[in-house]
Amino acid sequence: MLSNHLQNGIETARLVWSRLPNSDDEALDEVGLSKKSDGSRSESLDYEVIENNAYREEQAQRGKLMVGYYVGVKWFFALLIGIGTGLAAVFINISVENFAGWKFQLTFSIIQKSYVAGFLVYILFNLLLVFSSVYIVTQFAPAAAGSGIPEIKGYLNGVDTHGILLFRTLIGKIFGSIGSVGGGLALGKEGPLVHTGACIASLLGQGGSTKYHLSSRWLQVFKTDRDRRDLVTCGCAAGVAAAFRAPVGGVLFALEEVTSWWRSQLMWRVFFTSAVVAVVVRTAMGWCKSGKCGHFGSGGFIIWDISDGQEDYSFEELLPMAIIGVIGGLLGALFNQLTLYITYWRRNYLHKKGSRVKMIEVCLVSLITSVISFGLPLLRKCSPCPEVELNSSIECPRPPGMYGNYVNFYCGKDKEYNDLATIFFNTQDDAIRNLFSAKTIHEYSAQSLLTFLVMFYSLAVVTFGTAVPAGQFVPGIMIGSTYGRLVGMFVVNFYKKLNIEEGTYALLGAASFLGGSMRMTVSLCVIMVEITNNLKLLPLIMLVLLISKAVGDAFNEGLYEEQARLRGIPLLESRPKYQMRKMTAKEACGNKKVVYFPRVVKVADVVSILQSNEHNGFPVIDHTRNGESLVIGLMLRSHLLVLLQSKVDFQHSPLPSDPRGGGKPIRHNFTEFAKPVSSKGISIDDIHLSSDDLEMYIDLAPFLNPSPYVVPEDMSLSKVYNLFRQLGLRHILVVPRASRVIGLITRKDLLIEDNENSETVELQSTSVRSL
Amino acid sequence: MLSNHLQNGIETARLVWSRLPNSDDEALDEVGLSKKSDGSRSESLDYEVIENNAYREEQAQRGKLMVGYYVGVKWFFALLIGIGTGLAAVFINISVENFAGWKFQLTFSIIQKSYVAGFLVYILFNLLLVFSSVYIVTQFAPAAAGSGIPEIKGYLNGVDTHGILLFRTLIGKIFGSIGSVGGGLALGKEGPLVHTGACIASLLGQGGSTKYHLSSRWLQVFKTDRDRRDLVTCGCAAGVAAAFRAPVGGVLFALEEVTSWWRSQLMWRVFFTSAVVAVVVRTAMGWCKSGKCGHFGSGGFIIWDISDGQEDYSFEELLPMAIIGVIGGLLGALFNQLTLYITYWRRNYLHKKGSRVKMIEVCLVSLITSVISFGLPLLRKCSPCPEVELNSSIECPRPPGMYGNYVNFYCGKDKEYNDLATIFFNTQDDAIRNLFSAKTIHEYSAQSLLTFLVMFYSLAVVTFGTAVPAGQFVPGIMIGSTYGRLVGMFVVNFYKKLNIEEGTYALLGAASFLGGSMRMTVSLCVIMVEITNNLKLLPLIMLVLLISKAVGDAFNEGLYEEQARLRGIPLLESRPKYQMRKMTAKEACGNKKVVYFPRVVKVADVVSILQSNEHNGFPVIDHTRNGESLVIGLMLRSHLLVLLQSKVDFQHSPLPSDPRGGGKPIRHNFTEFAKPVSSKGISIDDIHLSSDDLEMYIDLAPFLNPSPYVVPEDMSLSKVYNLFRQLGLRHILVVPRASRVIGLITRKDLLIEDNENSETVELQSTSVRSL
Repeated sequence: MLSNHLQNGIETARLVWSRLPNSDDEALDEVGLSKKSDGSRSESLDYEVIENNAYREEQAQRGKLMVGYYVGVKWFFALLIGIGTGLAAVFINISVENFAGWKFQLTFSIIQKSYVAGFLVYILFNLLLVFSSVYIVTQFAPAAAGSGIPEIKGYLNGVDTHGILLFRTLIGKIFGSIGSVGGGLALGKEGPLVHTGACIASLLGQGGSTKYHLSSRWLQVFKTDRDRRDLVTCGCAAGVAAAFRAPVGGVLFALEEVTSWWRSQLMWRVFFTSAVVAVVVRTAMGWCKSGKCGHFGSGGFIIWDISDGQEDYSFEELLPMAIIGVIGGLLGALFNQLTLYITYWRRNYLHKKGSRVKMIEVCLVSLITSVISFGLPLLRKCSPCPEVELNSSIECPRPPGMYGNYVNFYCGKDKEYNDLATIFFNTQDDAIRNLFSAKTIHEYSAQSLLTFLVMFYSLAVVTFGTAVPAGQFVPGIMIGSTYGRLVGMFVVNFYKKLNIEEGTYALLGAASFLGGSMRMTVSLCVIMVEITNNLKLLPLIMLVLLISKAVGDAFNEGLYEEQARLRGIPLLESRPKYQMRKMTAKEACGNKKVVYFPRVVKVADVVSILQSNEHNGFPVIDHTRNGESLVIGLMLRSHLLVLLQSKVDFQHSPLPSDPRGGGKPIRHNFTEFAKPVSSKGISIDDIHLSSDDLEMYIDLAPFLNPSPYVVPEDMSLSKVYNLFRQLGLRHILVVPRASRVIGLITRKDLLIEDNENSETVELQSTSVRSL
Repeated sequence: MLSNHLQNGIETARLVWSRLPNSDDEALDEVGLSKKSDGSRSESLDYEVIENNAYREEQAQRGKLMVGYYVGVKWFFALLIGIGTGLAAVFINISVENFAGWKFQLTFSIIQKSYVAGFLVYILFNLLLVFSSVYIVTQFAPAAAGSGIPEIKGYLNGVDTHGILLFRTLIGKIFGSIGSVGGGLALGKEGPLVHTGACIASLLGQGGSTKYHLSSRWLQVFKTDRDRRDLVTCGCAAGVAAAFRAPVGGVLFALEEVTSWWRSQLMWRVFFTSAVVAVVVRTAMGWCKSGKCGHFGSGGFIIWDISDGQEDYSFEELLPMAIIGVIGGLLGALFNQLTLYITYWRRNYLHKKGSRVKMIEVCLVSLITSVISFGLPLLRKCSPCPEVELNSSIECPRPPGMYGNYVNFYCGKDKEYNDLATIFFNTQDDAIRNLFSAKTIHEYSAQSLLTFLVMFYSLAVVTFGTAVPAGQFVPGIMIGSTYGRLVGMFVVNFYKKLNIEEGTYALLGAASFLGGSMRMTVSLCVIMVEITNNLKLLPLIMLVLLISKAVGDAFNEGLYEEQARLRGIPLLESRPKYQMRKMTAKEACGNKKVVYFPRVVKVADVVSILQSNEHNGFPVIDHTRNGESLVIGLMLRSHLLVLLQSKVDFQHSPLPSDPRGGGKPIRHNFTEFAKPVSSKGISIDDIHLSSDDLEMYIDLAPFLNPSPYVVPEDMSLSKVYNLFRQLGLRHILVVPRASRVIGLITRKDLLIEDNENSETVELQSTSVRSL
């Protein structure tokens, strides 16, 4: 009565895979890539709970104590992630500040005598740092290149990119960041810190790195992708919290930008992690205050306190602010588009030529950056110090040292400063501080700001996508604050009566560019407020962000989405596409044939099926006594591989070993089925089976997921999408319409109370009504 | 082959409902309540998209322009909600400040002559205001009593409590708040403002109030519960943003505390609404600065700027801060428990006696509050003004007027002040400002603070749950800051060398009590930071909140959850209960029989089935040509009622009018099926059908939801719960296992690109790999 090829399971399975081209391979052929041509393969994660017998057994064994232990470990890990990420951030900051400090100290002392010698030292110093970074990345940790946020976003969306959460990536990210940021490239250390936090979290979750013998058994509590996802979310938030010293911003970033699923319990834990980071960073900075950390402490973390800036705003200013928003949206969208093209070209042509090309490329970029940042200020004429400012706390030119406004660089007279050098020949943190600074009206000429904007924008575009760890936050703030200050200068000239600070416009510009490029909203707003320590500008930042995001959205997607797409990370947006409303689940499946397994399957069949296709989930069909077929569950490829490798569940009989739930002991621990993060897992080619083994059978019933989510064939795809996306699934079975309904579940059926709260149950039951 | 009673639909349906006791009625009997005994009936909302023919037709007709219009209206509504809520907040604040201002002005001027006369005037003034509040609430808008947050939380969780979002509730809330807060009761106006925002949003969403002829046709774009949910979320955030002038806090509150589903697009809109509120409130306050708004402006919105307070903290302080957290957790949990008992008693005994009792109760509470707040300071001996403080900006005693520290109340000498009056005989906003104030060490004696704590705590417990609009934020801050300052006094004495401000401890105390009672985390933290305008205390607030929430959670649930439970609002937590892992979907359904409909059903049958039970969803069964039965969808009671009322789809023939999707025009607009918010909708008793009508038939196929979500019968209940909760469903069909699998949907199948982005598709397709 039902389709014939279901009558005998083994034959069916054989038939199906031999007769039909494999759908996944087809997809690969279509895009013209074989499996091994690209190192960065990605794979879906299993966020669904596989309720097989092993799981049920583990659940049954788990006492109250175990549950408590489990919760305790989660919180302990949140603490460790906070401490680890905080320390990593402090380490990176101390190193970067010191390298940059030595560099500028040396250069400034040499240029007193010879500008040429200073120039060469400056270039070499930068080149050395940048080379160390690219060397580490290309030779040791290729996954550490770039910001890492698209990959982490993908991971939390359900796609694992191989290599992103390994120990070597963590190391590469930390040391690579130090080199690339210290070497003065137009990139930041904030994105990499998010990746660092995620790596720390993931490594903790799997109990350390197995490859480097750094794993610990007692830490191996979390073996499912689900638990790791929560930890990685904590790690992300910790990274942002550490990068910007913005704990609330960190939580919101994790919430808005990276995670795809969110629960309020998780929010609470993420919040805790961020608070720990804040305390760790604060403690470290307090310790460094006494000068124990070299140049660190005076520059340090990016906190651009503008609390002495503009406190109020008038309605006349809303128009120029809106203009800043529009500029931000346009420049941000352009940035995304340019980097998209360049990255595309790099990935498909340049970087295919090997790591030597990557290294040469980065060194060239470093050379150009050094030449521009040293050379351009040389060409710029110095300006005389403003007279009014002399009484204020800001000195002009700044006293010898590395920090402050009004840099004396290649100036003849004593009371002069070089405005281009103030922003260009400086660490980015200090340049931003100078751009944001209040009470320094007309410090910069429009010409200098425009020159800087064009040059730095180009550098940022070119640098993005090279083989070094690279964040986009700080360059974005640099670009934005430059044109923001430019607009501010005009506003100051136009509304002379108002108390307007150019620094405020610089801040708004920074927000607008980040909004136009990254398209974040609440989290970016909070981060900007936290790093500038000024709550009063909140509504203005909101306004600017609203405009810049809206303008940017008119052109393309956000930076991370574009990059994720380019890297082959198939992110599922939170919302189904509009045309999905008109499609059904059946149409989405296409006419690919499903590869079934029977309940008891011959080992040889398993091997050949697994070899012949790349499917990751196989429905398992059984037959009832009266001959009806019945879908009894879904078997994952990775679980099958574990079974094949261990061999303990092989049996001689082709009959089910015993009715399900019967006496046969489960020989597998639930944790054995867990796949390590970011690794390729076991491959079918690695498993060696004797010919005796191949003649044996496996009863899949205890190992399959007995209740995968199902949808009727004619459900609209947008509803299927919601199901898939909201629950973070990997497979949904499309089944025919049911012939009968066993029951309806409504809210009332799900209101089950704990036995402990019997008193409240009583209270409740008096008022629960029919729903 | 399948169960017999499916053979003929009509008979089946009749049989089932007549033979079996109705499950919903059973539930009602169990809890001993009939349907009409309680006015506040709640009903589940339909957040699922009903993809019936009317919907499909509307989708098909909808052009690009319509989609654009729809999005535009959504943003326009977000703007209107922001403006409306902002103005409502300004209105409430101006009124409250003015009433309270007049009251204190009058009282202070009279007590110069006679304390007895002043006392009487004070009592009468309060009584009058409170009476006006309780009169409005009991006579006109019963749903306006209380804070409204539990009900709104319930609404966003999927349960509609009748009456909460009506126009009269909005009016009652606004004017009731003015009376109760102006009348000096121990309650706040913040919770009611959240409810006010939600009401405004909901009324906008349905195009105004139909009952009061305030509706407008062109506003009636949003007719589904789904769209309204988004608007109400915006309204909530706007309420918080307006109450605390905390736009980010508002967004987070909506996210953390009230909403159950969240999408990042919504976050963006909510954020916009909050920004609008901030601008509206700021503009209004700027306008009021010149003295146009009477007493408003000097007190105004609760912003307790402590930016001149303690900026740093040392590790020794962490212990007393942790103690504050523990106290907060304990007192908060106690508060929740006490209010739970009192509310339970009120609901089940006191308030059943009618609105006269409610009015008397509130007036009594007002009387007691007045007597205590006036009388206790009288009994307190005045303290001499501190000498050191005389040079600072803070005067002692404060100059004649209503604001400031060091109140001279019943003091003999000139240079004396009454510390109890400083906090007790004052508006709550000013009292909190005085408690938070820095540079006023030892202003309060421990005895006064302790007296105030005990008295105010008791008053807050007693006042909670009376028939007036009542928020818990400000009373919570009052209680918390009192014991916080108490701890701070000891710390100041103990660590004399450190620069410690008692005001900082008061702030931490406030955070701890709110954390211990409401159990919010991130949002509360951000709100505290925004209202105190001090970012530096963020980690400390986080620490205190972590501790107080953990301590509180050890005892009971959060205030809003407890209250929602008590009010019969069955909130579904974000997480399934632990024992659900061991239950199956089938077990959850119990052995209730399902009431089916056949595809074509006799009108008389529909009526009798609807009359005989209270089910809200009915599976519809059809038969294929070879006699197999097939579940073709789910029919909602409310849609059936619409069909019965309009009668246009009645037909004479008991045969399907035509194959589905065929030529018969849909006579119903999709919006006709929408049910007004917070109303009881149509009842079966309101529909009058002639005997001819009863003999006719309806073909349900075009009106049913053809693809409700289904789960196999043996899926574990925790997975079902996740499905239900994450997607915000109302019904899930439990079906037998499928006999075959039509296909598997994986991530790859859901990656459908817009046609416009063909360029990016190309980029993507080169790197998408098999998942």
